[in-house]
Amino acid sequence: MRLDSVIVRFGGEIGIKGEWTRRAYEKLLLVNIKKTLKHHKVIYEEIIREWGRFYIKTGMAVETAQKLTRVFGISSVSPAIETSSRMEEILRKGVEIARETFPAKTSFAVRCRRTGKHAYSSMDVCRKLGERILASLKDKNLRVNLKTPEQVINVEVRGERAFLFSQTLIGVGGFPLGSQPKLIGLLSGGIDSPVACWLVMKRGCPVIPVYFDNIPYTDEVTTEKAMETAKILFEWAIGFPRKIYIVPNGENLKTFMEKSPKALTCILCKRMMYRIAERITEKERAEGIVTGESIGEQASQTLQNLRVLDSAIAGYPIHRPLIGFNKQEIIDLAKKIGVYEVSTQKAKGCIAAPAKPATKAELEKVEEAERRLDIQKMMEKALVKVEVLDL
Amino acid sequence: MRLDSVIVRFGGEIGIKGEWTRRAYEKLLLVNIKKTLKHHKVIYEEIIREWGRFYIKTGMAVETAQKLTRVFGISSVSPAIETSSRMEEILRKGVEIARETFPAKTSFAVRCRRTGKHAYSSMDVCRKLGERILASLKDKNLRVNLKTPEQVINVEVRGERAFLFSQTLIGVGGFPLGSQPKLIGLLSGGIDSPVACWLVMKRGCPVIPVYFDNIPYTDEVTTEKAMETAKILFEWAIGFPRKIYIVPNGENLKTFMEKSPKALTCILCKRMMYRIAERITEKERAEGIVTGESIGEQASQTLQNLRVLDSAIAGYPIHRPLIGFNKQEIIDLAKKIGVYEVSTQKAKGCIAAPAKPATKAELEKVEEAERRLDIQKMMEKALVKVEVLDL
Repeated sequence: MRLDSVIVRFGGEIGIKGEWTRRAYEKLLLVNIKKTLKHHKVIYEEIIREWGRFYIKTGMAVETAQKLTRVFGISSVSPAIETSSRMEEILRKGVEIARETFPAKTSFAVRCRRTGKHAYSSMDVCRKLGERILASLKDKNLRVNLKTPEQVINVEVRGERAFLFSQTLIGVGGFPLGSQPKLIGLLSGGIDSPVACWLVMKRGCPVIPVYFDNIPYTDEVTTEKAMETAKILFEWAIGFPRKIYIVPNGENLKTFMEKSPKALTCILCKRMMYRIAERITEKERAEGIVTGESIGEQASQTLQNLRVLDSAIAGYPIHRPLIGFNKQEIIDLAKKIGVYEVSTQKAKGCIAAPAKPATKAELEKVEEAERRLDIQKMMEKALVKVEVLDL
Repeated sequence: MRLDSVIVRFGGEIGIKGEWTRRAYEKLLLVNIKKTLKHHKVIYEEIIREWGRFYIKTGMAVETAQKLTRVFGISSVSPAIETSSRMEEILRKGVEIARETFPAKTSFAVRCRRTGKHAYSSMDVCRKLGERILASLKDKNLRVNLKTPEQVINVEVRGERAFLFSQTLIGVGGFPLGSQPKLIGLLSGGIDSPVACWLVMKRGCPVIPVYFDNIPYTDEVTTEKAMETAKILFEWAIGFPRKIYIVPNGENLKTFMEKSPKALTCILCKRMMYRIAERITEKERAEGIVTGESIGEQASQTLQNLRVLDSAIAGYPIHRPLIGFNKQEIIDLAKKIGVYEVSTQKAKGCIAAPAKPATKAELEKVEEAERRLDIQKMMEKALVKVEVLDL
């Protein structure tokens, strides 16, 4: 038995859209899938388009299915085997699958969905294939269990064709990447920021990461971690630019430490980051900024502080997808995305952070501290030294 | 065997905080727990405070444990039975639990954690209790399985006391409610907004819901749904005010429909809601606004539109905890919270929504449309008619 197809489903989020949007998203998803297949050097004959489904004809069905679980917009995939929709052929292939994949003494069920005109009903397929399997594989001592079977053979009849499969891999769902505008993502080298970026990517937004290099207050390891997490994020965005901005921020941090109240260092530093990110957002014609902040996770992330941070810029929204997440939920997601290992490696951490950071920074005091500095000039100086890398 | 204690754990999120914050959160959690016990008329003798744990002494252990899984900040709970830390007593109680709760032919393990000075080690407890259970319950045909047991007896030895339990219920974790400032939550009667409110409540923020009543463009059912979802949210906030703001918004909507471009109706309506919510935020001394928007879920929720919405107000952040969620993820969470049934009941929906709403509203056009109206006056008129209910 050689699997020769992959069934790609995108019913979930895309399926509930209006006709026009649905078609546009479907088309975009197809482009993203083709780029992914090319990237992974998958050889395929054709892609058949049906309502809520693509059928990819390839001899590399299992590997391909696995790769496609990481394409945004796909709700699930199944490596499958194609036959004609003649009942006898369906029965023959079904028995073949059962013979090769069912262990002895297992319980099983047959499930069937059908579109098109046929001399049989879906129920006929289930009943006949079930009977044929029992009769053909007596030595296996199988039994039918419709409610909680250990093994399932699924049959999808589509006009002249039929697809049989026994395995369904769950995809990440969401919207195809590129169906929404770009966002600028603040990437720190830690665990939160890549998860935040990934969540908006899942909703269709390509993310251009920006890393603020705080050397000498952090170390090279932090920079490397940020680059590695960016690379992992780009693996979820095959076919999209792999561009990252690196902003030298150590000078600014030095100025804050020397000239401003100690307790405000982190707030001032973050406001500077937001301002620089806003300029990059403009330049990139992106629609906003995404950060990894979560309420109360760090001293700088109280609601009062988030409010003071937000007021640093006015032109673009700050999106914080992790705002309501618990730490453990972030960790679980980081593992799924693949950034957990990298982002939890030991690094120096920012030594500019004060022992007692302000947890309820007052906007007036922050603005007063900023008035004593030439924020505009500091920003311009950093922007001149920005590096843009292609990872 | 009568369970007489509940072990309450709050290690997760609270445990990683600094000493001062941890103590403050622990104290607040204790207050919230006491309010919950009082609300549910739980009779208890005392609450013993230990590192990362409370032990509640009550004869209503099972019901109490269940109620406490819905208190923010608690990571898990176990109904338990207390004994002294004398080995013989632990063995006796352990056998009693096994006799009453283990089915025949089951596999089991004993696990033990210990603080304080005792003549025995944790390993001794595991081994001896395992042996004693096997010897005492020969008729049950039990067997030990340390890796994947079907039943587990846990022993927590704490100084003079020991607690035995076989069941652990997972709590929602997060931070105790009230550990962060208040937020104003836009509640629509639909499924998204209560989930968004709940997520920030989980991070410690009490939420004051605001409902915009769009009658005659919606119906009474929508209002009732909003009230019901608010009540369910309040069940997660026992001891906190049950206040909801109801803002009549139909007049405003009428004005937009009559005097502004059709495609902008939803955007203009939402900007008005944000403005009114901002005034309520000020009045309530809250720190921001929470909404149920998710990227791309509705035509009004494109990134471009969110940016136009955000620019309506300047004083407070808009927090959007669902920004990166898929619809199915929202549904799953709504079921867990208990709002799914109510929020998916059929209602009229807003008939003011245009057939082709702007998906990429331009700020200039929106502001132009607003200049033609007396936004300030519309807002004031609505604010005068605001009702505040105590649900």
